Amino acid sequence: MRWLIKVFGYFGVFIISVLLLFSLYVIAKATILYSALTPEHLAQKTAYLKKVSLLPRNERPNVVIIYFDDLGYGDLSSYGNALIRTPWMDSIAGQGLLFTRFYSSASVCTPARAALLTGRYPPRHHTHRHVFFPEGSPVAFYRKARGLQNALPKDEILLPEVLQAAGFQTALVGKWHLGDKKGHQPNDFGFQMFYGVHFSNDMKPFQVFLNDQVVIPPDKIDQRNLTELYTQKAVEFIKLQAQNQQPFFLYFAHTFPHVPHFVAEKFKGKSSGGLYGDIVEALDYSVGEIWQTLRQAGIADNTILIITSDNGADFGGSAGHFRGRKQEVFEGGFLVPFIVSYPAKMKKAAVVEDPFMALDVFPTLLELMNIPLPDDRTIDGKSLSQVWLGQTSQSPHEDLLFFEPFSGKIGAIRQGIWKYHTRKQKLVPNLFYPLPNFLTVFAEPALYDLTKDQESHNLIALQPAVAKQLENKIAAEEAALQKNQRGWK
Amino acid sequence: MRWLIKVFGYFGVFIISVLLLFSLYVIAKATILYSALTPEHLAQKTAYLKKVSLLPRNERPNVVIIYFDDLGYGDLSSYGNALIRTPWMDSIAGQGLLFTRFYSSASVCTPARAALLTGRYPPRHHTHRHVFFPEGSPVAFYRKARGLQNALPKDEILLPEVLQAAGFQTALVGKWHLGDKKGHQPNDFGFQMFYGVHFSNDMKPFQVFLNDQVVIPPDKIDQRNLTELYTQKAVEFIKLQAQNQQPFFLYFAHTFPHVPHFVAEKFKGKSSGGLYGDIVEALDYSVGEIWQTLRQAGIADNTILIITSDNGADFGGSAGHFRGRKQEVFEGGFLVPFIVSYPAKMKKAAVVEDPFMALDVFPTLLELMNIPLPDDRTIDGKSLSQVWLGQTSQSPHEDLLFFEPFSGKIGAIRQGIWKYHTRKQKLVPNLFYPLPNFLTVFAEPALYDLTKDQESHNLIALQPAVAKQLENKIAAEEAALQKNQRGWK
Repeated sequence: MRWLIKVFGYFGVFIISVLLLFSLYVIAKATILYSALTPEHLAQKTAYLKKVSLLPRNERPNVVIIYFDDLGYGDLSSYGNALIRTPWMDSIAGQGLLFTRFYSSASVCTPARAALLTGRYPPRHHTHRHVFFPEGSPVAFYRKARGLQNALPKDEILLPEVLQAAGFQTALVGKWHLGDKKGHQPNDFGFQMFYGVHFSNDMKPFQVFLNDQVVIPPDKIDQRNLTELYTQKAVEFIKLQAQNQQPFFLYFAHTFPHVPHFVAEKFKGKSSGGLYGDIVEALDYSVGEIWQTLRQAGIADNTILIITSDNGADFGGSAGHFRGRKQEVFEGGFLVPFIVSYPAKMKKAAVVEDPFMALDVFPTLLELMNIPLPDDRTIDGKSLSQVWLGQTSQSPHEDLLFFEPFSGKIGAIRQGIWKYHTRKQKLVPNLFYPLPNFLTVFAEPALYDLTKDQESHNLIALQPAVAKQLENKIAAEEAALQKNQRGWK
Repeated sequence: MRWLIKVFGYFGVFIISVLLLFSLYVIAKATILYSALTPEHLAQKTAYLKKVSLLPRNERPNVVIIYFDDLGYGDLSSYGNALIRTPWMDSIAGQGLLFTRFYSSASVCTPARAALLTGRYPPRHHTHRHVFFPEGSPVAFYRKARGLQNALPKDEILLPEVLQAAGFQTALVGKWHLGDKKGHQPNDFGFQMFYGVHFSNDMKPFQVFLNDQVVIPPDKIDQRNLTELYTQKAVEFIKLQAQNQQPFFLYFAHTFPHVPHFVAEKFKGKSSGGLYGDIVEALDYSVGEIWQTLRQAGIADNTILIITSDNGADFGGSAGHFRGRKQEVFEGGFLVPFIVSYPAKMKKAAVVEDPFMALDVFPTLLELMNIPLPDDRTIDGKSLSQVWLGQTSQSPHEDLLFFEPFSGKIGAIRQGIWKYHTRKQKLVPNLFYPLPNFLTVFAEPALYDLTKDQESHNLIALQPAVAKQLENKIAAEEAALQKNQRGWK
């Protein structure tokens, strides 16, 4: 007995020592070893923006991007929803372009937003490993200990920076979710005005900023008013620019329909789609306010209005008939509504069926304004200017990559009708009920023909050459990222 | 230091003692305390079967149930599959009835099979907590330690027992998966002939039995030949009964398309749906063999042929446009193809859209044969004889219950257009990559209108009365089960 106590005693002390040493290592890694973002191409960025500022300013349509959080592919009536009415968006789509296979660039917030604003795939700006968390929070600490970044690199070139250099007034109203680190906030990346929140509405502290000042602290915030508050600020901004005859870029990034769900009293119970439907109808109302403001100011024709979402449906939204939801590389995780209006230049309304991705927005807008792309870095998106102007409906993409948000690796690739998944989800029964059930993802590649089913039947055995080619393509892309993740030229 | 070693020492001894005691308790529970199945109504069962054996034998059509393992709702061409051709099944459906909202009684093997053969919901026969495992295996031991059963109660009345009593020759060809405990095997529940396997093809030992004798041991089994072997045995059985002019019941329960996937060389690469498609086309070929045998023997007209599956699509199959897959209470987990042919009595071919459940098969067949139901127990299924005879297409069900396979609790209820889920799946991000990703299920109820979307928008807030009524109904059903789980009258 005495002998046993001694053995356990030494063992306990050994274990505690190992744990202590490991904790010290984790703390050191998170605080000391954590690699800050080195601004490798800051000089090139400065030079590029300088060049943009000297360009002739002949073609300067206003740009409004209305960006929803977690709105699913099937959540608008124009996308087949039978419970929710979105007449404003439907009508804008009816006069412009409605895309049926438009992908976000990620299936979660941070990488989708970063890719939208840079035209580059998530690994380029270190946003490929899920989402950023508030600086100082345990999760941010934990992420840093794993070597993950928590802010955008200073040398990334963001759309608001380019447009500001080109003479636009720029504003972000709503959600940023690209880090709250000092020097990496919205005002530091080209937004002259920022009214909104740094993070998702389920992350703490949730507070409203005007630029770098908190104007509604966490204990004063009432999420039911958020959509209306945002809308007021957005409308004010547009009116002011119209008055000053100033071209502008408004990035209006809503907080909803991300969970938790809140809606203003006047929309509550109005939709046939429940609280979720009420929220989407409130968002549609907000779109209507923006649209009417543009119309009344006489600038709707010369405004490029884009309406889309950061990723596919979450659990209370509709992914239409597609497989998968937010956080997955299945179609339902990446497919989003995408509507564009540009009355001055669009030939006619149309429904476009080819596949495109949100990282195309950056190069498209720049081409439409005769602004050259930065030449020191890879822009992964392709210009869709010909599509938007109605000259073609064909995708310029040979392939599209789908980054898996946990590993940051390429989870799938689309090429024509084919989508190749590097691994396939497989359920593992939980024998430990009532502990939480769990699903485990096993590594098993799959090839799907997107025209034939909802990513169901694996066709690798039948199309080994296609599968091999796509597998090789992914390997080549991963190798290129390994060698030059940031895509410097 | 000495003091610390002492503390850890005593703590270690304490922990080890607790673990030892707990292990002893678990072993005791699994071996000694484990409640064997008490045959509470064995006398009533014997009396009932005796009564059936004395009935006049005027109406005795043959019965063939072809039962697939994990075949998804969307896996047949008649159910919209664009990659797999199933001409035999399509043609049988074209001459008979094809059901578009037919549910299995569970989303995993064991409870689905038990409910099919008894007409009773899974808790009635202790099959509601996932599936049975081979006696003596660690999982079976673990299940017993948790108080779960691993075999059917002897007093359950199974379809083969009733039909045998009614003068049928009965055979099970293929998979049983209702336990391998001595006295609870296929021959003990009314199958005069059993050729097949006790468990799924991913469970060990996987071996082929003829009655209680192993005829192909695990090391000799070649799963590529299974479908053909089964088909031969089924065809032989039919031919023999036809020769003897003996009414028969053949329960032909295939091993595929359950994983792991194997197919005979002659089907390999033949389908456009990959290996999975090849397997389904081989199964269709097998259905064709059965159909031709019935035709050639001149007994097809007087045979009720049922073709269906034990649960919705697994990860390589197609759930059509429905949400969810095997193991879930979403539509995709429970919806299966269901085709019935009975040329002698069916008025005309039809597509039937009302909701029904596989536990209706037992009372339907008995009514069609003028065999009364047992009167000492609740039969949860309802007779669909009028539907099968083409006199109506309306469901007799006021509501249908969907048991969640891990907890064994009611996970959802369907009533008319409404489906109420007691809890909703919600993804929890895994911060511990590269450890396996996991999903956690949180308790959050949801009400869906099945005619409006794919179980997407929760309408509880909008239809509180409907939700409340369904919640109460579930509570009442659970309370009734608590009080009288076996459903004795």
